Amino acid sequence: MKQISAEELKNASLEQLKEDCGLLREEILRTVSVCGGHLASNLGTVELTVALHRVFDFPRDKLIFDVGHQCYAHKLLSGRANVFHTLRKRGGLSGFPKRSESEYDCYDTGHAGTAISAALGFAKARDLKGEDHNVIALVGDGSFNNGLVYEALNSVKILESRVLIVLNDNGMSISPTVGGMHELLGEMKGEPPLEDMKVFERFGLSYRGPVNGNDLSELLPALAQAKEDLKKGSVLLHAVTKKGQGYSFCESAPVKTHGISPAEIQSEYNAALGEELCALRKNHPEIVAVTAAMTDNVGLRPFFEAFPERAFDVGICEEHASVLCASMAAAGMKPYYAIFSTFLERAFDEIIHDICAQNLPVTLCIDRAGVSGADGETHQGVFDLSFLSFVPNLTVAIPKNIGEFRAMLRKSVDFRGPLAIRYPREGTEGEISDFEIGKFELLHSTMSDIILLAAGERCLKIAETVRDRALSEGMEVGLVNARFLRPLDEELLLSLAQGTIITLEDNALIGGLGDAVARFYRSHGIEKHVLSFGLDDRFLPHGEPHVLMQEFGLDENAILDAVRNAYACR
Amino acid sequence: MKQISAEELKNASLEQLKEDCGLLREEILRTVSVCGGHLASNLGTVELTVALHRVFDFPRDKLIFDVGHQCYAHKLLSGRANVFHTLRKRGGLSGFPKRSESEYDCYDTGHAGTAISAALGFAKARDLKGEDHNVIALVGDGSFNNGLVYEALNSVKILESRVLIVLNDNGMSISPTVGGMHELLGEMKGEPPLEDMKVFERFGLSYRGPVNGNDLSELLPALAQAKEDLKKGSVLLHAVTKKGQGYSFCESAPVKTHGISPAEIQSEYNAALGEELCALRKNHPEIVAVTAAMTDNVGLRPFFEAFPERAFDVGICEEHASVLCASMAAAGMKPYYAIFSTFLERAFDEIIHDICAQNLPVTLCIDRAGVSGADGETHQGVFDLSFLSFVPNLTVAIPKNIGEFRAMLRKSVDFRGPLAIRYPREGTEGEISDFEIGKFELLHSTMSDIILLAAGERCLKIAETVRDRALSEGMEVGLVNARFLRPLDEELLLSLAQGTIITLEDNALIGGLGDAVARFYRSHGIEKHVLSFGLDDRFLPHGEPHVLMQEFGLDENAILDAVRNAYACR
Repeated sequence: MKQISAEELKNASLEQLKEDCGLLREEILRTVSVCGGHLASNLGTVELTVALHRVFDFPRDKLIFDVGHQCYAHKLLSGRANVFHTLRKRGGLSGFPKRSESEYDCYDTGHAGTAISAALGFAKARDLKGEDHNVIALVGDGSFNNGLVYEALNSVKILESRVLIVLNDNGMSISPTVGGMHELLGEMKGEPPLEDMKVFERFGLSYRGPVNGNDLSELLPALAQAKEDLKKGSVLLHAVTKKGQGYSFCESAPVKTHGISPAEIQSEYNAALGEELCALRKNHPEIVAVTAAMTDNVGLRPFFEAFPERAFDVGICEEHASVLCASMAAAGMKPYYAIFSTFLERAFDEIIHDICAQNLPVTLCIDRAGVSGADGETHQGVFDLSFLSFVPNLTVAIPKNIGEFRAMLRKSVDFRGPLAIRYPREGTEGEISDFEIGKFELLHSTMSDIILLAAGERCLKIAETVRDRALSEGMEVGLVNARFLRPLDEELLLSLAQGTIITLEDNALIGGLGDAVARFYRSHGIEKHVLSFGLDDRFLPHGEPHVLMQEFGLDENAILDAVRNAYACR
Repeated sequence: MKQISAEELKNASLEQLKEDCGLLREEILRTVSVCGGHLASNLGTVELTVALHRVFDFPRDKLIFDVGHQCYAHKLLSGRANVFHTLRKRGGLSGFPKRSESEYDCYDTGHAGTAISAALGFAKARDLKGEDHNVIALVGDGSFNNGLVYEALNSVKILESRVLIVLNDNGMSISPTVGGMHELLGEMKGEPPLEDMKVFERFGLSYRGPVNGNDLSELLPALAQAKEDLKKGSVLLHAVTKKGQGYSFCESAPVKTHGISPAEIQSEYNAALGEELCALRKNHPEIVAVTAAMTDNVGLRPFFEAFPERAFDVGICEEHASVLCASMAAAGMKPYYAIFSTFLERAFDEIIHDICAQNLPVTLCIDRAGVSGADGETHQGVFDLSFLSFVPNLTVAIPKNIGEFRAMLRKSVDFRGPLAIRYPREGTEGEISDFEIGKFELLHSTMSDIILLAAGERCLKIAETVRDRALSEGMEVGLVNARFLRPLDEELLLSLAQGTIITLEDNALIGGLGDAVARFYRSHGIEKHVLSFGLDDRFLPHGEPHVLMQEFGLDENAILDAVRNAYACR
């Protein structure tokens, strides 16, 4: 679509603005159907975005998106229409706000709940510097369950600054929103009862609304009024929108259309999770499943449907979900907590303090581990091996395929300590064969004393390719499935004391498997060449996972070169 | 004191119970004055604890303490009076609830905000198992600011279980409680207005109170009624207590007497932080300081007094504080966020996602790093080097003494990226001399090719001792102040390519300095002996820091043995 300028937007008639909304919606739909991306959330906020751009002056005023699943119209309105077709492609536009991309994006987001804190920070800085622009946080109701949002709301009075919070209430996060706050907001959508409005006022916010967030004729005067009120203090504007608005398929299937993948997907680990837990549940009444607003994405839907009384979606509350698991385990249950790797970072303290310090049998099912691709910097799952490597009492497993993941889940039922299993989205099925906790698998043995030690399906595939190429050059190379980061297979490592080990992991090179293996040999006084490949010490941009892996540390050619060197130096 | 049995407590008259409260208070005061510990918080909750033990049946009923700064009377009432004099001593009673210590402690705590989540988990497990005991969370109002508490409250309706939340409202966390929730509770202490009560009801809680939590004649019937109401649903009982109740010095100085140290303390790093920031502020109007309810403990009081408009205590909200810093930095300010190492774990995701992914100039001042001693497992600051070692864009500094800490702070003002400085509580002053970011300091050079590479004051002291002992045995050993974990001093490390390096760090051995140094040599293809000493892969109990360090990985004799071996193998 052609760029709509700020001037055009400021001068347009209401009818013209509505037409613009239609154009934006078409462009978003067209682009997402090619590039993938967040569809329903972006379609739902087109009018809100147009109204914000009409009423406020960006980039002088600051607009901060929570999560950022709803920034596409903003990108299209802020000089990026001509490059919007590059969305989520390597080198192209990010699917999230990015300061490096435009001065209209003042704060990068990706995880839930940060926008109000960030808005308060911008507003406070403005006050201290004697500036006078407006600061707006656009927050979905799903994020309103998150503790960070509450911590920020609690600070409105402490910080004594002025922010506008626009609550984009579509009744959904990625899953439907749940919990007490959701019910409170639900009550307020009709006619807000005085007592509920007063709550927000006690927190230092003037409540305005609810308004229909998909109707410009309601939105524009409401926002103009909010802008006026903002001169005196902080304001919460409650806008009710429809996720997927304007595209009937999205409106009727907002969970499925929250994020759209351009390509068809093969087997997924998460489907195996749902199947296995349902099957295991039959003989294990102590099994419960927990998710933080990700029931479908982590594959728990079948379990939720079969065992609703022991399946819990607590909303975007990764910390609370962890403590809930720890305490249910302390009380004799067997909790499975399924979560994306990047979001598990939110529960880091609870993993240490609640689950592992008490050595409780909670199983963390860590999905989207490794390079996760098109969502970019804020969504890569490349730190989990590093931040779990040093947590006492924890066992960390990395299945080689979906079959081994199933076997690990079956084994986990009787495992009596905390266990983390990390895996990517897609994979191949493979056999379900037995194994021992803490034992690696020797896939190809050799006399050459050069061993590739790879963790997880993606790295094992790279290792197989490297090994095939080495073989074709006459070099024999062994291959080990390093399926545990904690504990390491010490017996096997000791048996490999001669020669060179080359480790491969789909994780930050710092703090992962390579360091663990090298540390093992050092601590045993064994001189050993350990060469390690993993992801570079930088935040990885968006792009295809295999392309990113190749570019940022797991290049087959470089690994093959390492094999050649090791072979030459035997 | 002699043990008061459950039976005695159940049958005692009101007068007898009051006498018991007096005995408990005396015992707590006497023990804390010898052993150190949390005084004011424990004195304030004596009546609440007696009333809970009178009305409920522990350990059948479950009592979960938030944080646990208020569990002493509970310990005295649950069979531990005869060992209470061992409080916080190595091998003695923990200052926090510990499952390993008594069946009356059903869930371990230490960090704020976990108790309601944990109570919901216990209650849900009870329901699923068809049991019928009561589950009670005792939570201070300071924790009520924490996002995790809100996430749990949001779940009360989702989980459809029954818990009793006793809100111990003394207007304090370690610092006075702040923020919107505090003001709301404040309003309710008079006569709770209908609208505020309704808020809790929307979250699925029946509000009861406020009651005087230091008056048994009010408390006992209120708790009995709450127990009755608990049969129908979840209840919030709002008890107003006085921190330090019954000991006038505590009542008048609750911040100072929150935690008591048995010995006199020498110089402290946190005092230097306050002094330096106040001085730096004169030429740097962009400096702001942030704390999560720890103004005094982290040494920021002078800054708060001198520059109240740019000093922010946001309550026990470690995550929000981090985002606030990131956003203020994005808006041109220079934030200093002072926090204990163990509590920084709560902000792990925000360090990655908000501060470092955006490469923002936030300075993290990480206090109580390393073994922190008498608070035990939940308060050791031994993971920070590990969880910061792999975060891209971050610089991590470890000063050798308070003088170097001052120099680092002075340098930090013009540093344009995220910077973490980690230090223990106590230290020696030392010179304030200049240095370059990422450069180590060669303290003792030698021809022997055996180098001790130590991070931080405590490990440098151990290294000096080991070096002296080695010298007395005729062995020359070099010594390097490894004052940066990120970046390493690559030039110096390359110059040490021959011989043996022995690294020492007051951090988990896994993922810290030793691994970083070894990785550096590996990645440069340099064969190098790197022997590493740090803390064992386990949760460290309470005890004197130097005793724990010696016992769990930093034993001088073991390090000297390593020197002897290296010397013999030259």
